[in-house]
Amino acid sequence: MNDIAWYTVGAVAATLTSFGFVPQILKMWRTKSVRDVSPITILQFVAGVSLWVVYGVHLRDPVVIIANLVSLAILITALFLYFRFFKKA
Amino acid sequence: MNDIAWYTVGAVAATLTSFGFVPQILKMWRTKSVRDVSPITILQFVAGVSLWVVYGVHLRDPVVIIANLVSLAILITALFLYFRFFKKA
Repeated sequence: MNDIAWYTVGAVAATLTSFGFVPQILKMWRTKSVRDVSPITILQFVAGVSLWVVYGVHLRDPVVIIANLVSLAILITALFLYFRFFKKA
Repeated sequence: MNDIAWYTVGAVAATLTSFGFVPQILKMWRTKSVRDVSPITILQFVAGVSLWVVYGVHLRDPVVIIANLVSLAILITALFLYFRFFKKA
C-alpha cells in the first residue's frame, strides 16, 4: 500500500476509537437508563485519555493531542449523562 | 520532567485506556445484565482497535501493536459477555 492508503488506515482507526462512546451516549440519551453502564470504565477512559493529551503535548504531536481532546469531550459528555440519568436504587 | 517520567506518563495512559473496558466486563459478569450497554460502542472499538493493530504493524511499533492487541482481547471478551447475557425483549 502507498502512504496515502496507510494514512487512511490510521485516520479511520483514530476516528473509530475517538468516537467510540458516541453510540453509548445516544443509547443513554434515548433510554434515559444507565443501570448497566460502568461509570468506572468511563472514568478510567477520562483519566487515560487526559494523560494521552499530556503525553501528546510532550511529543508535540498534534494528531495525538487533537484525537484525545475529541475523545475527552465525548467521554465528559458520557459521564455527565451517566450522572444525569443515574437513579439511586 | 526527565525521559523516564515521560515514559511513565505514556505507559500509564496506555494501560488505563487499554484496560478501559475491564470494569464494564466485571459489571456485566456480576449483574448478568447488559440492557443499557451499547453493543455498537463495543463493535466500533473492536473495528478501531483492529485497524490500530494493522497500523502498528505498518509503523513496526511494538508498543502500538501490543497495547492494541491487549485492548482487542478485552473488547472481544466484552462482546462475548454482551451476547451471553443479552435477553430478547
